[in-house]
Amino acid sequence: MTRRLALVGLGPGDPELVTVEAARVLNEVDYFLVADKTASHPGTADLIAMREAICERHVAGEWTLVPVPDPERDRDDPGDYAGAVRDWHEARAQAFERALLEHPGDAAILVWGDPALYDSAIRLADRIVERGVVDVTVEVIPGLSSVQLLAARHRLVLNVIGGPITITTGRRLVDDAVDHDNLVVMLDGALACRDLPDPAAWHIWWGANLGSPGEQLVAGRLPEVAGDIWERRSAVQADQGWVMDTYLLRRV
Amino acid sequence: MTRRLALVGLGPGDPELVTVEAARVLNEVDYFLVADKTASHPGTADLIAMREAICERHVAGEWTLVPVPDPERDRDDPGDYAGAVRDWHEARAQAFERALLEHPGDAAILVWGDPALYDSAIRLADRIVERGVVDVTVEVIPGLSSVQLLAARHRLVLNVIGGPITITTGRRLVDDAVDHDNLVVMLDGALACRDLPDPAAWHIWWGANLGSPGEQLVAGRLPEVAGDIWERRSAVQADQGWVMDTYLLRRV
Repeated sequence: MTRRLALVGLGPGDPELVTVEAARVLNEVDYFLVADKTASHPGTADLIAMREAICERHVAGEWTLVPVPDPERDRDDPGDYAGAVRDWHEARAQAFERALLEHPGDAAILVWGDPALYDSAIRLADRIVERGVVDVTVEVIPGLSSVQLLAARHRLVLNVIGGPITITTGRRLVDDAVDHDNLVVMLDGALACRDLPDPAAWHIWWGANLGSPGEQLVAGRLPEVAGDIWERRSAVQADQGWVMDTYLLRRV
Repeated sequence: MTRRLALVGLGPGDPELVTVEAARVLNEVDYFLVADKTASHPGTADLIAMREAICERHVAGEWTLVPVPDPERDRDDPGDYAGAVRDWHEARAQAFERALLEHPGDAAILVWGDPALYDSAIRLADRIVERGVVDVTVEVIPGLSSVQLLAARHRLVLNVIGGPITITTGRRLVDDAVDHDNLVVMLDGALACRDLPDPAAWHIWWGANLGSPGEQLVAGRLPEVAGDIWERRSAVQADQGWVMDTYLLRRV
């Protein structure tokens, strides 16, 4: 019999930012799968605890969370970023497939934020279907992204009137900033905006660990606030064991 | 006494796509304000009815919806788009201000989708605060965007691995497509992708009236599906009285 595999966007962390649909689906499936990075990044245990808090708040009765140990990604070959990501996806697909084989019934993969935005769960599920070892029907439950919580906290419209928005990664920021005036930056491990050649040209609205108890917010001219942002980023990493930040840069 | 003015993102239409936070805030305020475009666009009565269905589903007991007639926007001067939008914002701010003066207590403005994305509610609320006639504290409650539902329905990741996403409008699409490979298009009144000079270069994932009973989905190579999309777009406009579409274009 075909089993359900729901990719459930849980939003940015706060249990109140879950949709009614996501809460319903959590109640319908038999267990939850979650990528477990604690072997290489012990601080991310807090991220699993936050997912547990969401389940505790929204699931009636007992529930089962199955951690799937995350394979290590090869970060040594910057020349083949896409290839390294593909290999990692294959290893992950096999790890999740094993978990599905070991646990009968319908499953949900708990996704931070929205599965549509810089997340690997959809490609992971597509790969599980392609491999054909387990028989699952995939459904995607959208969730709020940290970008949207960043905007709400700063009371910010992400676009200027009639203008475009570019969403990019820390890795690409310096290149993409050359011909864009309004950028949202995600997946930035090292605050790449500090490398922009013309910092005084930019205003930044920054947030870290949005939706979590350690949430941080800073806004201002980039050269004036970059130091404060870096300090808070380091402090929240030390306090919570993990840091995920998101920001909007707009040319002034 | 300072009153609450909550800008509540309701998501793309389906009452299940409301967050738990949005549902809570709807229960806390005294009444709801909604922009009413039915004088100039009678078909949009359906959009108000959908908001009423969301309130009915999530608000315990009685609730009050106050429609605020939307001023007409001057669309005759394409040379001053930003200016026309600013004038319209001022007239809207005055209309909402009058509604707040006439109705005491805490209010929520019901926002389609997410207030952070091509929506005027945040600028409207900021202008009400600046004018200083009514004493309100503004808060923003994020909501799912139709873009996220589009992605979920097509089981789509909006970015290619490590790549950027450009969100733009129908008005700007032909220009923005020159140097971008991956674009989300919103606010497109006339399916501007039909004007792209190289249609065969693009794949499209399209959706209309996402989250509503008339929801439409089409995906494929742009030249192969553009006719089907246009027909469905016209049919849903005729059936529901309104059409809002969103799509992802990706170079193949």
